[in-house]
Amino acid sequence: MKTKAAVAWKSGQPLTIETVDLEGPKFGEVLVEIKATGICHTDYYTLSGADPEGIFPAILGHEGAGIVVDVGPGVTSLQKGDHVIPLYTPECRQCKFCLSRKTNLCQLIRGTQGKGLMPDATSRFSLDGQPIFHYMGTSTFSNYTVAPEISLAKIRKDAPFDKVCYIGCGVTTGIGAVIFTAKVEAGANVVVFGLGGIGLNVIQGAKMVGADKIIGVDLNPEREAMARKFGMTHFINPKEVENVVDAIVQLTDGGADYSFECIGNTKVMRQALECTHKGWGRSIIIGVAEAGAEISTRPFQLVTGRKWEGSAFGGARGRTDVPKIVDWYMEGKINIDDLITHTMPLEDINKGFELMKRGESIRGVVLY
Amino acid sequence: MKTKAAVAWKSGQPLTIETVDLEGPKFGEVLVEIKATGICHTDYYTLSGADPEGIFPAILGHEGAGIVVDVGPGVTSLQKGDHVIPLYTPECRQCKFCLSRKTNLCQLIRGTQGKGLMPDATSRFSLDGQPIFHYMGTSTFSNYTVAPEISLAKIRKDAPFDKVCYIGCGVTTGIGAVIFTAKVEAGANVVVFGLGGIGLNVIQGAKMVGADKIIGVDLNPEREAMARKFGMTHFINPKEVENVVDAIVQLTDGGADYSFECIGNTKVMRQALECTHKGWGRSIIIGVAEAGAEISTRPFQLVTGRKWEGSAFGGARGRTDVPKIVDWYMEGKINIDDLITHTMPLEDINKGFELMKRGESIRGVVLY
Repeated sequence: MKTKAAVAWKSGQPLTIETVDLEGPKFGEVLVEIKATGICHTDYYTLSGADPEGIFPAILGHEGAGIVVDVGPGVTSLQKGDHVIPLYTPECRQCKFCLSRKTNLCQLIRGTQGKGLMPDATSRFSLDGQPIFHYMGTSTFSNYTVAPEISLAKIRKDAPFDKVCYIGCGVTTGIGAVIFTAKVEAGANVVVFGLGGIGLNVIQGAKMVGADKIIGVDLNPEREAMARKFGMTHFINPKEVENVVDAIVQLTDGGADYSFECIGNTKVMRQALECTHKGWGRSIIIGVAEAGAEISTRPFQLVTGRKWEGSAFGGARGRTDVPKIVDWYMEGKINIDDLITHTMPLEDINKGFELMKRGESIRGVVLY
Repeated sequence: MKTKAAVAWKSGQPLTIETVDLEGPKFGEVLVEIKATGICHTDYYTLSGADPEGIFPAILGHEGAGIVVDVGPGVTSLQKGDHVIPLYTPECRQCKFCLSRKTNLCQLIRGTQGKGLMPDATSRFSLDGQPIFHYMGTSTFSNYTVAPEISLAKIRKDAPFDKVCYIGCGVTTGIGAVIFTAKVEAGANVVVFGLGGIGLNVIQGAKMVGADKIIGVDLNPEREAMARKFGMTHFINPKEVENVVDAIVQLTDGGADYSFECIGNTKVMRQALECTHKGWGRSIIIGVAEAGAEISTRPFQLVTGRKWEGSAFGGARGRTDVPKIVDWYMEGKINIDDLITHTMPLEDINKGFELMKRGESIRGVVLY
């Protein structure tokens, strides 16, 4: 079949809208009509050429929602008409990782997914006979896409695509880091570094579980109002204090119980660790640092009880937890609507990237 | 009263045996006759001058066992004749740290203890009117010492002082890191870097809880036989493999579930983190690094699920957990006897330091 898609032909160049060829789903695969997709920094990271694993030409996009149109042989858990969110972190429920009960990082199809291919090591996308690579197993910048069954979370049918698509990445990454990775408890003091799309979701996750102080840190004072709306109780602008770590330690009577780095800056990651409380502080790295950058600290920070950890996709098991988060949205427990600041047709996707790069949007969403 | 003690007059010099003056216990304090004390690397670290918090003159020693001789006013949990192990990590059960349930790092008397003083900010030791500082709140290189009540664990009376003194530091630090800090589960794969007095105790802790592979790493091939006796199942000499991390990842089918750094080398700490399993590996730093040294890694190691942590005094709450470990020794669950390779009178304590520095002893113990 033919489908409209935004194609990334090479790094550093705008996407172009093309009508590409899409093969039907093979064994264990599903054809999905994408109804909406967010534009995320990770798409830009790859498009910019900074991602050492980036390959081109590719159809980017990993934050979508849509409807099952067709299923390949062997697919048992989904059928035509089901509403789904594609998962860049699949959940096979049978690999060593899924069975460990200790991680959400299913590795069953990691090898082919990382190479931009379906599990049989081929691509479903092509143009004029030239294969185009998949991206993160999702390629939601195409109106129709093929994904493995294990890479699709089935969600309720009354959930609006233009909002819950954001649960495919940003919402889950932020809220999940609080709830599934850190398991923040009521009454805890939480610090969030970086008040963009991820940080705001960390804040609303912390509010949802009853955190006490929720301290936001950002260089941009314009982030303060939005963050307070999502539950931030205290705002620190690093430009306005002598030492961010000291300011947090004072504000929390010894340090934060949990901190979250949502920027990808290794110097901030160190601050995030060192502002946590002696004895039990836990610092969770969410942001993706530039290739080759390293984090450092004195080991004494860890020997005296702080823990340095990370979170990918919020520690969420996609097929199990993403439908729950959709429920939370539908029940009014979390706010997504205010985070989606811009919508646009696929033809304007490059404008969406520009809005994000300039920090003007929290989340821009493409509506098909 | 007068007591015999080994005094550290200044850094880098041998201890000298003196008859010093010891004031009786003040409010909340206890006079203890030390019957035996281990000589630990931490004593040497301070004596060498490398410890930035080291102060002189002082009476070192923090791994002792003895008998209560007298109690000061306000002491309620101990009485004359009780057998005790002094604790450099006290357990007051009322400070923010004790009440957190998340750490063993009681901070009630941290300030004065770090300055070599009792909680009222004075010293009980002196010679010719010149005060001599306490060390770690224990000063077990004195035949009689004064310690706060909260810094003494009451133990059973049938436990031999010359063995259980080692529970005052090394045994608890190693076994506790496995049981209280990491909570290693049966079937886990464990790697131990450094097979000295701490590492061997980590190994027997891992064996006690039913770990599967217990891999020891040491440059000294002479450590292998002893470590196997304590439960090590595989030995890796870094000189004999191309890459220690790769060797461990291969041996464990993806990485260790838990690793323990028992050396204090920041490069090894990085290896210890990076040899753990994607998704859930936890690396526990036990060793004390030189002042100013830093650990580093790529944040990707944490984002993909590894956790970097530390352990002090094995995560053990001294008054609660040390008596349990004494029980484990008395019940034959753990082996201390084979770790105490040398004993000596106080007069030979400098020889004990030499044996340790040359790597000839696992643990040397002074018998009063």
